[in-house]
Amino acid sequence: MLLIPISDLVAKLRRRGARSVALQFPAGLARQAPGTAAALRREGFDVIVSGDPCYGGCDLALDALQYADVLVHFGHAPVEERSNVIYEPVRFDFDVAVLERALPDLHSRRIGLVTTIQHLHLIGAMVAFLREHGIEAIVAPGDQRTPIPGQVLGCNFAAARATGADEILFVGTGVFHPIGIHLATRSRVVALDPFTGEVQEVDADRLIRRRAAVMEKARDASSFGVIVSTKSGQRRMDLARRLVALSDKAVLVAMREVSPAEMLDLGFAAYVNTACPRLAYDDQIRFPVPVLTPPEFEILCGARAWDDYTIDEYLAP
Amino acid sequence: MLLIPISDLVAKLRRRGARSVALQFPAGLARQAPGTAAALRREGFDVIVSGDPCYGGCDLALDALQYADVLVHFGHAPVEERSNVIYEPVRFDFDVAVLERALPDLHSRRIGLVTTIQHLHLIGAMVAFLREHGIEAIVAPGDQRTPIPGQVLGCNFAAARATGADEILFVGTGVFHPIGIHLATRSRVVALDPFTGEVQEVDADRLIRRRAAVMEKARDASSFGVIVSTKSGQRRMDLARRLVALSDKAVLVAMREVSPAEMLDLGFAAYVNTACPRLAYDDQIRFPVPVLTPPEFEILCGARAWDDYTIDEYLAP
Repeated sequence: MLLIPISDLVAKLRRRGARSVALQFPAGLARQAPGTAAALRREGFDVIVSGDPCYGGCDLALDALQYADVLVHFGHAPVEERSNVIYEPVRFDFDVAVLERALPDLHSRRIGLVTTIQHLHLIGAMVAFLREHGIEAIVAPGDQRTPIPGQVLGCNFAAARATGADEILFVGTGVFHPIGIHLATRSRVVALDPFTGEVQEVDADRLIRRRAAVMEKARDASSFGVIVSTKSGQRRMDLARRLVALSDKAVLVAMREVSPAEMLDLGFAAYVNTACPRLAYDDQIRFPVPVLTPPEFEILCGARAWDDYTIDEYLAP
Repeated sequence: MLLIPISDLVAKLRRRGARSVALQFPAGLARQAPGTAAALRREGFDVIVSGDPCYGGCDLALDALQYADVLVHFGHAPVEERSNVIYEPVRFDFDVAVLERALPDLHSRRIGLVTTIQHLHLIGAMVAFLREHGIEAIVAPGDQRTPIPGQVLGCNFAAARATGADEILFVGTGVFHPIGIHLATRSRVVALDPFTGEVQEVDADRLIRRRAAVMEKARDASSFGVIVSTKSGQRRMDLARRLVALSDKAVLVAMREVSPAEMLDLGFAAYVNTACPRLAYDDQIRFPVPVLTPPEFEILCGARAWDDYTIDEYLAP
């Protein structure tokens, strides 16, 4: 069964006069590829599916787009606007009454409210629900990579910072986003999982202890590969060059997929990651050697104080 | 210890006026990356190492080259000339007297002689050795993807075909190249491994039986993803489009790394591979579903007779 509403998409493509279309799905939606492609082919379009792994709107299939008039990128919101890319995020609904669970944990009557793209269509209803319960929720636009008010990414907490609130409610799954918000804003952060109803005040201590251990392992590394991504929305070359300049032992390494096998093959004793910021935090366990974030490498090189430890964010330039 | 002769390379780079250099190594040489990069950095060059997997001269690190004046590609000969790429193949020596082992198996006094890039510097010595033993060895240039006389690739046997000989001696490791030569030329092929001294007349029957079984499994597939590579020297888009036109069930799939995980995610019931021809032959065991070669898909679609079964070659256009 197709989850993708084909008729809407066909109308959008026809309005643009597109005759050929590239389709890109994140892993969780990729099974929709054969059916969506076949349906569009029946409507008269030339279709090319991108078969490369994709984890975000920062990773557009520009290779496949070379062979098509338009790229349709499913599952994510734009981190950059391009005239020949159509973004089709997916929405996950829930009953906003679940926010009641978070009320006992909120200390202030005036809080910041943020969520992820899947739930952004509910942000108005969430604000209304909180108002009915005597809480003013501030929703603010982030920067150009998160232009929709209230939207945070795993690499960008600008919309949380912009609320200026001392207490922030994050509605979404997992602890990575709320810990990032806490480290980026130093505010109190309450996280509500809208599907389980679980509420927690996040605590960054465990993450910081774990990262300190990784930094300690990297301290005496004989060589550092400073990874710079070649993906469309992950190219922080200026940052990578600035980091290489901090140490004689550092060399730029261009990578598309940041993978354990390639790290091992190349044989650098440690890496610094300027690609997707989440890689160092989430995937260290898969990596054969220490992989530092840019702020961590700055601390190791004496270019930043330990007290200024912060989460790696990819903010709009 | 560095295997790469830095001083020669530095001289070449200085002659070109290069100030920044991208380095690309196949997996077997990748451990040379940190040392080579550090040595070039000491000589005053800005260096960027490509960290993506690389299996041939058909896979140039054009992403890394965006940030450098010149790309140095180690380990392979050119399949295409580009003004800003320096190819640094590696040579593996052996004593040509090992060819004596092949003499009892050669039926003709006039044979074709081919080898792979690592041993091409010995081809003159091999011809001389054979001449001393009463055998005339014909060495011919292939096409533009294998311009050096006597050179075959795993995807290109033009230099074997060009000898016009009914009997061909292949000097190198493995059976893939000689089986490919046999299928591509229908000549008798004797393979000599120059390191073990092992000699065999190759036989394609087992490969053909195995491939017939894969084709049988793909016969009733509900959908076919026709893989087209986005690597520099593997883009057979015209072929891929021709194959898609053969079946309503076929859709183009653009891929950089042809990987089991992505095949499974995308969920096509079978694939047709127009990327590196060796993938279907060598890696079927890693793939979750049948992966056909272009001639095999043509047979399945009735566009080619089974008697015309042939190996998938990537010849110069």
